[in-house]
Amino acid sequence: MFEPELSRAFLASSLTSDTAETPDPDGFLKERSESATYCVEEVPLDALPGWRSDEAIWHESSRFFTVEGVSVRTNFGPTPKWSQPIIVQSEIGILGILVRRISGVYHFLMQAKMEPGNSDLVQFAATVQATPSNYQRVHGGRSTPYLDYFLEHARRRLVFDQLLSEHGAWYLHKRNRNMIVEVPEDEHLLVAEDFTWLTLGQLRHQLQRGGRVNMNARTVLSGISYAMADGLAADDKFRDSFHRQVVESHTRGGGDAEVSAAITWFVDQKAKYMLDVRRIPLDAMDNWVRGTDSIRHRDDRHFRIVGMSVTATSREVNTWSQPMLEPTPGNIVALLCQRRSGILHVLVQAMAQPGLTDRLELAATVHLSPGNYTRSGDHPPLAEYVNAPESWVRVNAAQSEDGGRFLHADTTHLVVDVPEDHVVEAPDNYRWMTLGLLSRLIRSGYYVSIEARSLIACLL
Amino acid sequence: MFEPELSRAFLASSLTSDTAETPDPDGFLKERSESATYCVEEVPLDALPGWRSDEAIWHESSRFFTVEGVSVRTNFGPTPKWSQPIIVQSEIGILGILVRRISGVYHFLMQAKMEPGNSDLVQFAATVQATPSNYQRVHGGRSTPYLDYFLEHARRRLVFDQLLSEHGAWYLHKRNRNMIVEVPEDEHLLVAEDFTWLTLGQLRHQLQRGGRVNMNARTVLSGISYAMADGLAADDKFRDSFHRQVVESHTRGGGDAEVSAAITWFVDQKAKYMLDVRRIPLDAMDNWVRGTDSIRHRDDRHFRIVGMSVTATSREVNTWSQPMLEPTPGNIVALLCQRRSGILHVLVQAMAQPGLTDRLELAATVHLSPGNYTRSGDHPPLAEYVNAPESWVRVNAAQSEDGGRFLHADTTHLVVDVPEDHVVEAPDNYRWMTLGLLSRLIRSGYYVSIEARSLIACLL
Repeated sequence: MFEPELSRAFLASSLTSDTAETPDPDGFLKERSESATYCVEEVPLDALPGWRSDEAIWHESSRFFTVEGVSVRTNFGPTPKWSQPIIVQSEIGILGILVRRISGVYHFLMQAKMEPGNSDLVQFAATVQATPSNYQRVHGGRSTPYLDYFLEHARRRLVFDQLLSEHGAWYLHKRNRNMIVEVPEDEHLLVAEDFTWLTLGQLRHQLQRGGRVNMNARTVLSGISYAMADGLAADDKFRDSFHRQVVESHTRGGGDAEVSAAITWFVDQKAKYMLDVRRIPLDAMDNWVRGTDSIRHRDDRHFRIVGMSVTATSREVNTWSQPMLEPTPGNIVALLCQRRSGILHVLVQAMAQPGLTDRLELAATVHLSPGNYTRSGDHPPLAEYVNAPESWVRVNAAQSEDGGRFLHADTTHLVVDVPEDHVVEAPDNYRWMTLGLLSRLIRSGYYVSIEARSLIACLL
Repeated sequence: MFEPELSRAFLASSLTSDTAETPDPDGFLKERSESATYCVEEVPLDALPGWRSDEAIWHESSRFFTVEGVSVRTNFGPTPKWSQPIIVQSEIGILGILVRRISGVYHFLMQAKMEPGNSDLVQFAATVQATPSNYQRVHGGRSTPYLDYFLEHARRRLVFDQLLSEHGAWYLHKRNRNMIVEVPEDEHLLVAEDFTWLTLGQLRHQLQRGGRVNMNARTVLSGISYAMADGLAADDKFRDSFHRQVVESHTRGGGDAEVSAAITWFVDQKAKYMLDVRRIPLDAMDNWVRGTDSIRHRDDRHFRIVGMSVTATSREVNTWSQPMLEPTPGNIVALLCQRRSGILHVLVQAMAQPGLTDRLELAATVHLSPGNYTRSGDHPPLAEYVNAPESWVRVNAAQSEDGGRFLHADTTHLVVDVPEDHVVEAPDNYRWMTLGLLSRLIRSGYYVSIEARSLIACLL
């Protein structure tokens, strides 16, 4: 949560004017990781410096975020009623990436950034990820580099700008402003020490390996549409038959009539499923145990809320404490693809989650959380596809969720390309869509969940 | 709330096949009003048959709606913190109008409908206005006429279909599905006794007189875009210079680039204003007095929650009781228009209201609620335009809010056409938009508030 201060702590004060892409992203990330040392350790939740714990857990400044209880009732899924802790953060942060064409090819200004919850601590992040609490310097930190490109956008070319949701199972009504701003090739721009220009091909390579591009960068990247195609295609060294289909699918299905038909189907789902969410005191939650060290489910399912202490040493020492949400391990999200009528489609589901702003969003084909189930019969529809034949699997990478809030939240991302003659039996709340249609829906606001967007980013 | 039962109660069992428009809408409404008698009277709130009153007011069936308390904090407007009662209705109802071309001109199937809160009890309503509680017949009523055209829409031409918000000051997260379904001219369709086909010209005439087209019909009509123009123009007997500008404005400004720029400005506003709304018990509200007869503000400001008993007699007797919200009288909404760069624009404001799904929507230029203010200095920006010279006023009509929930809620609708050389000084959260751009935003979901949509309907 105080990440910007941290990134500033290891941001060189001297800026260089080299705007060429890095020839070696792996080496860059390794070098930036080694430039500082980090100590991240669990500490008792009820004695976190700066935090109070009563009906909720909150920071003495009344800013940043709170951990509260919610009571949930729904007719979506097998469980009609439950309570759970949830992170409440009503501030709208900025997740922004600067792009520029260099010799005709789009490059993305990525930041090497440490987040305490990441299993691989330092990853490629968006150019800017900051909440008003951060950039208005509640904690007196230094300024956030490149922030003005996003705050003072009046004269800028905004390639993408939309409020998008975050994890609906863990956050209440959280959303961030996802922005891509283009900088003209001839505009002077200094590249700070923790920053580097990557092409989409380089980013794709990093995404496919897993654990190297953070969640905030992935959600912004899901906003890239192939309206940018001329500047992307020239770079496409990695293009195989499947990726040609992905690009083709991005150019299809975003017309007004298809968008209207998709929205009508989606509104049908919203009318079918109800969701009632009320905030309650943490002590009023059923089945959750509030201890001095953590808040955990009685059967150790779902997740724990724990306290973390973080110390980072680079040019200066930076220490802070915060609550984090640690999910039970083994979470998997999977997106089924299939060539239908000659065009690659992906199978999304309308899914209710307690923290979504408007009840349902379009989610990945499968959300599998082994830690949530007591019996295998509780598995969601189509869960068997996570064990699809190896030859169908196009993406298989563990990606971190937001390491500023979630501890060791490594979600396996699977993209499964089902053969054309294979019949997928999906319930009514599932629908095949082209990537062009999904891209248009992402640009329309709260339609596509963060897990689905993260998978789409892995397909770029 | 039990309106569908009522409309059924005076719906003839015999259907006629006459599909021509009514030559005399006034006569039709008068005749339908006189075909039944209604008795609507205030009764004590704490002894409403079928309703319980504790932390909230709720129906014994746990359906329909509840009246609850909310505690609100915001940095929008002059009041940073307050509590108030609010109506909670999470069901998504259908507001649907059937249209068909008759001799090339669009006709709208309107229903004469009694709603107990209306000052003019019987008004023109949408073809269907029903919640699942109604049409799933919780109260064992008869079926809702024409409902299947909207529920079974797979083979239908959907002219408009979107979830849209309702009063954000009085409802928590209320939205309804607004639909326009086109019926082919050659399809057999029986017109039931309380229904009639009206042209847009006839509807406009009814709208301009006020108190004759109910709120549910107005919100659906705001979804008409001039994509339907060929079938609308032929009917345009009432077109003067101002209305030619209205039609022209509807055809301008809905392109992708303008929509993106408007959304960016709107997201800037969402980032600037915070809104925190928590549900609280009715007895925990500050400044509200809970009596046996009503819940009222200590200084009689804002509104009262009262109990109503309704008896309708037509072919059979139908009686029910329900809570209603009675606003203090004198509410005014005004939309400023001005020709800018040769095109008519309207001035909307990004406004926070506690019940909105996502904090802010685009609202009318002025929301003036004299009953809310203790001093005239509390008046909102631009309030002086409600006293604009008579020659600037294009629409001045009192329209009812939803008469199924709101009692005597007659809001004066003003459209003020400011001369081109007049300078309007508006704060940053105001923006001039063409009707084409607003129409595109209405079709994108929760962007345009119900008060603004109601004014736009008055411009059709």
